[in-house]
Amino acid sequence: MKRLALLGSTGSVGTQTLAVVAEHPERYRVCALAAGRNVELLAEQVRRFRPERVSLADAAGAAELARRLARSGARLPEIGIGSEGLLGVATHEVDLVVAGLVGAAGLRPTLAAIGRGRDIALASKEVMVMAGALVLRELRAHGARLLPVDSEHSALFQCLAGQRREDVARLQLTCSGGPFRSWDAERIERATVKEALNHPNWEMGAKISVDSASLMNKGLEVIEARWLFDLPPERIDVVIHPQSIVHSLVEFVDGSVLAQLGLPDMRVPIAVALAWPERLPLRAPRLDLARQGQLDFEPPDRKRFPCLDLAYQALAADEAAPAVLNAANEVAVAAFLGGAIGFPWIARCNAAALRAHAARGPAQALRDLDDVLAADRWARDCAREWLASEVGAVLPEVLPS
Amino acid sequence: MKRLALLGSTGSVGTQTLAVVAEHPERYRVCALAAGRNVELLAEQVRRFRPERVSLADAAGAAELARRLARSGARLPEIGIGSEGLLGVATHEVDLVVAGLVGAAGLRPTLAAIGRGRDIALASKEVMVMAGALVLRELRAHGARLLPVDSEHSALFQCLAGQRREDVARLQLTCSGGPFRSWDAERIERATVKEALNHPNWEMGAKISVDSASLMNKGLEVIEARWLFDLPPERIDVVIHPQSIVHSLVEFVDGSVLAQLGLPDMRVPIAVALAWPERLPLRAPRLDLARQGQLDFEPPDRKRFPCLDLAYQALAADEAAPAVLNAANEVAVAAFLGGAIGFPWIARCNAAALRAHAARGPAQALRDLDDVLAADRWARDCAREWLASEVGAVLPEVLPS
Repeated sequence: MKRLALLGSTGSVGTQTLAVVAEHPERYRVCALAAGRNVELLAEQVRRFRPERVSLADAAGAAELARRLARSGARLPEIGIGSEGLLGVATHEVDLVVAGLVGAAGLRPTLAAIGRGRDIALASKEVMVMAGALVLRELRAHGARLLPVDSEHSALFQCLAGQRREDVARLQLTCSGGPFRSWDAERIERATVKEALNHPNWEMGAKISVDSASLMNKGLEVIEARWLFDLPPERIDVVIHPQSIVHSLVEFVDGSVLAQLGLPDMRVPIAVALAWPERLPLRAPRLDLARQGQLDFEPPDRKRFPCLDLAYQALAADEAAPAVLNAANEVAVAAFLGGAIGFPWIARCNAAALRAHAARGPAQALRDLDDVLAADRWARDCAREWLASEVGAVLPEVLPS
Repeated sequence: MKRLALLGSTGSVGTQTLAVVAEHPERYRVCALAAGRNVELLAEQVRRFRPERVSLADAAGAAELARRLARSGARLPEIGIGSEGLLGVATHEVDLVVAGLVGAAGLRPTLAAIGRGRDIALASKEVMVMAGALVLRELRAHGARLLPVDSEHSALFQCLAGQRREDVARLQLTCSGGPFRSWDAERIERATVKEALNHPNWEMGAKISVDSASLMNKGLEVIEARWLFDLPPERIDVVIHPQSIVHSLVEFVDGSVLAQLGLPDMRVPIAVALAWPERLPLRAPRLDLARQGQLDFEPPDRKRFPCLDLAYQALAADEAAPAVLNAANEVAVAAFLGGAIGFPWIARCNAAALRAHAARGPAQALRDLDDVLAADRWARDCAREWLASEVGAVLPEVLPS
């Protein structure tokens, strides 16, 4: 019986994790759940999975949860609130913490769980993007393992299983190419928000859909891969694959390439992370290559999609630069979604933030979480000011998502 | 330093194995070489790799080898001849025996090497096709390992590394489809020998080229896979993939699929088998998917290519039936290559041999090599007689290849 804690239990990864767990009640015990403001769904999850501990964003939510549970006669778990409550769930006595919080909010609880030596099923991409160097050191110090839940990184993880790190020649992340894959630069220049949100293969939130359109998402995944698998950036590259069936590939020194494939279904990487090194039988439609018929590949166009190269620039700069890039990008995407700037200004803003970061002086290391958050805050201000001065965009403050 | 013996050192797998070894002289010691009649090449190999023992087909060859080596001042290895010499090389004190003999000739020496507990890099497909059930029992009894050298089986082997057997849902062998992939039945009916030898992706001998055209080759590989990986035939299937870039795939119970890819290059599976669980850096052109552009898949047409189903029929029948199918096919392919029968009669002859085998009575197990060779001999006679009576083909005796 594997004991689980879920950070972000009412979100997309959280609910799908519980769906996988529900298929295998004999293998998993859901011990702790952290949600935000969706009290109704959390109450349902508590009734079903009977965790020992939960947390919510605030006291009002906690009171409402207690009321709902009392009404249905369910046993009351320990209920925490705010960041304390979240840390309580993250450090609860379990075998695996599923880190499914969106944005920078996942950073502190994930580091806390690692500090207790817990294995982490990591879906919060900001953790490795913002703090990869720091997280890698913490994992080593505490003997914890990261099991990636992102489909691309899960693919790489599966392809690397049982292989020696020194035999890896190259990681190759696949990328759908997004909705603007076949657009020329001029058309991209005039892309609307609605067009950017029209992702071909996955249904996703607005922020990540825009990141997929700009290829910043793939750039952030390159950064994640660099730290998750501890390989230098020059051994990580990207290939466009519009069908999103091959989720990523690993080339070895003998020229052999391993790839992981499947229909787009987040439950698969979740199940891999939950069960590794075993596998969980899943009831789900299976990939039928003969029916699929055709898989296409093409090189990414780094001219039309400059955000991809920015990720490599950030990795080449210093440990803080990826956090700077991530924060600037959040500001720029919010500005684009709010109608304040055109699509190409996202990349321009990100590049400007990296330039400004480089101009600040010597390379910055990430000693602790405060360093990460300082780089993040600095970059948000920097991006906002740059957009105001260059585009005349009047922007609200963009807090860490 | 891994000590190697090569059975079939002057053949395609043998010479490519030595080419890989020559790139890594610090890792391998070539201790024993078995060749047939190519004295000139064997002499060159002896001068270069200085084995302790060699063997040749006959005494004349052995004398010629000694003469050539003496002339060049090379130290003379121990020289054996015939099947005794071959067994001497197969059972020489080494860490790995590369079994690269073509046809049934590999059977006895491979079993002898397994009997000594040697690991086997297996390229001789007849070993598992004719005697799979027997070989599997022998491997278990002697604690030896089989490392497949065939590109498809090496792909499956690599995808299965570090995975639990019970988590495997399905093996999927890829198949180029051969030169008749897009031909209609009527055109296949009239196919010439020249057309059958025109394989799209690999340069191969005549026999295996015809087997690729009939899909019998893929059927034989299904039989090999059944024994190599000890999985029931219903969990092994075939998908047509004309580009031969994806060498095979494994689907797991969670719906995740792993695939091995690469440019067609036998040195890669050879290097995998030599170095496993490590990998050997190889100087070779690398797969560039973006340049490759497109990978296609389609279901095999079991009507136009009935030989594929015959392999499943043989596996469902008894342990001897695959040997019967293999032998009948050798006779039929020789008859086709000799101009005695048309292409579709290969499948008809094979089917007739399986029917006649089933009519012989209760299921036959393979207790030992004699049982295998008896099934082989019986099927050759059966196929020859059937072709004579059905097609009026006057055929020479087709000895085990």
